[in-house]
Amino acid sequence: MPVALAVDIGGTKFEVATVTDTGEIGGRARVDSTGASDAEELFGRLAGIVESFDLDPVDVCGVGSGGPMLPNGEEVSPLNIGVWRDFPLRSRVAELTGLPTFVDNDAKALALAEGWLGAAVGVSNYIAMVVSTGVGGGIVLNNKLLDGALGNAGHIGHVVVEPEGTELPGHVRGVLEGEASGTAIAFRTGAPASEAPADERARAGTMVGRAVGSVANLLDLQLAVVAGSVALGYGGVFFEAAQLECDRVAQLQHSVGTRIVPAGLAAEGPLIGAAAVGFSGSGHRVGEQ
Amino acid sequence: MPVALAVDIGGTKFEVATVTDTGEIGGRARVDSTGASDAEELFGRLAGIVESFDLDPVDVCGVGSGGPMLPNGEEVSPLNIGVWRDFPLRSRVAELTGLPTFVDNDAKALALAEGWLGAAVGVSNYIAMVVSTGVGGGIVLNNKLLDGALGNAGHIGHVVVEPEGTELPGHVRGVLEGEASGTAIAFRTGAPASEAPADERARAGTMVGRAVGSVANLLDLQLAVVAGSVALGYGGVFFEAAQLECDRVAQLQHSVGTRIVPAGLAAEGPLIGAAAVGFSGSGHRVGEQ
Repeated sequence: MPVALAVDIGGTKFEVATVTDTGEIGGRARVDSTGASDAEELFGRLAGIVESFDLDPVDVCGVGSGGPMLPNGEEVSPLNIGVWRDFPLRSRVAELTGLPTFVDNDAKALALAEGWLGAAVGVSNYIAMVVSTGVGGGIVLNNKLLDGALGNAGHIGHVVVEPEGTELPGHVRGVLEGEASGTAIAFRTGAPASEAPADERARAGTMVGRAVGSVANLLDLQLAVVAGSVALGYGGVFFEAAQLECDRVAQLQHSVGTRIVPAGLAAEGPLIGAAAVGFSGSGHRVGEQ
Repeated sequence: MPVALAVDIGGTKFEVATVTDTGEIGGRARVDSTGASDAEELFGRLAGIVESFDLDPVDVCGVGSGGPMLPNGEEVSPLNIGVWRDFPLRSRVAELTGLPTFVDNDAKALALAEGWLGAAVGVSNYIAMVVSTGVGGGIVLNNKLLDGALGNAGHIGHVVVEPEGTELPGHVRGVLEGEASGTAIAFRTGAPASEAPADERARAGTMVGRAVGSVANLLDLQLAVVAGSVALGYGGVFFEAAQLECDRVAQLQHSVGTRIVPAGLAAEGPLIGAAAVGFSGSGHRVGEQ
């Protein structure tokens, strides 16, 4: 049975696990990724946990990382990892593991994960989103993950939803990430997003629903799978407002009935997604499709 | 040299021509498509001009038509052709011509045409748009025309650009088609779109630029090719406003520098596009890609 080494590159931790092509997670290790002094010191931490794995039965390595990045992660500059700028992540991990190695954006990895084992199983057209500190996404259309010129397709956080909206520093006014991310909500309320009042939680959902409705109309898809601490933390009030606004916007023959649902995979999503990046990159089909 | 029979199904006319795989248009015929009494009478007009062609040297038939439609035009219900509702266009044209026949949305056909011989030659990622009575589009990503679940991907006219905007009957408030189409401009000004004052022409451009900026951010593409009587009729004032707003919105590493340009093909666009649908459907590659 094919096995992937799954590597999740996050702003607070790195996590590594073996994952079979049926999605079973085997050995698993993690390390803090904050406060590194430089790029090599940080990579050394990743190497430390990778070296604790027996790679003999492993066929491929898949990596999910924050972006931006060049295609296949040949250079990555994750927004939340300041010491890696144009860091050659794919080649370094390939060298470290001796495995064929594939790297993709973590939100696109999540889209693969949700289609494989999550809330989009059996669905050929959908968007997967993360509404958390930032807002990202990945889109599957006709069973294929969209890439775009540099591999950044799915970046729904920068769709305009409220032109007269919030002027969040570093953002174009009124884009989804500037309205509905945890950062935006904290900026709007002056308190942590987790303490936001009900009307702000619903407003974040409305903005997400508007963006999803636009994307459903644009791309002829009918499902949005939403993960992330803001969306999942707010729960019902967020998802109900999102669905209401999406219903208002998505009224074309091909978009009416578009659903916005919580992601199906919990904490395992990033590792499952990284494994999917590896299997997909090596041409090994997983899941129903 | 492979030859396609290209069929352009429009609300005011049907046009048919032979087109080689280098884009040379040979014989060409057209017929009025307005005022038909029923579906069969209208199809009879198309049959009348098709039968004037010698189909011996023709390899494939490609059709571009207004939507909505089922995939490959197995049933079409063009908004601007009232007597065709769920009309089995592909099978009827196939029966009529005896050729392998492929049907797609006319805006998607235009996207193929512009990539083959127009303003998107050599570009792997772009959107082609028509800003006319309505607003439609087609998207090419990584050299592939996007379809979506039912083949309607590219439908940029229904992306929200101005939530507090125009309440055009039959449209969700604030979608691009409700702000920048000829129908919307006539509704807003009370006069034909061709008589709109400069500020309305610029406003239409701004709305198009905002939608293009959102799509560039979302899909990681950097070119919009725009056709249609409103866009091309308004010219500079429209395109300058569109570019300005797009520059404001498209500021990500992958979207900065996105250009909005007039379509490269003039009146031949629909026929070239229909031929491209035929060649593409039969697996015959045309153009550089």
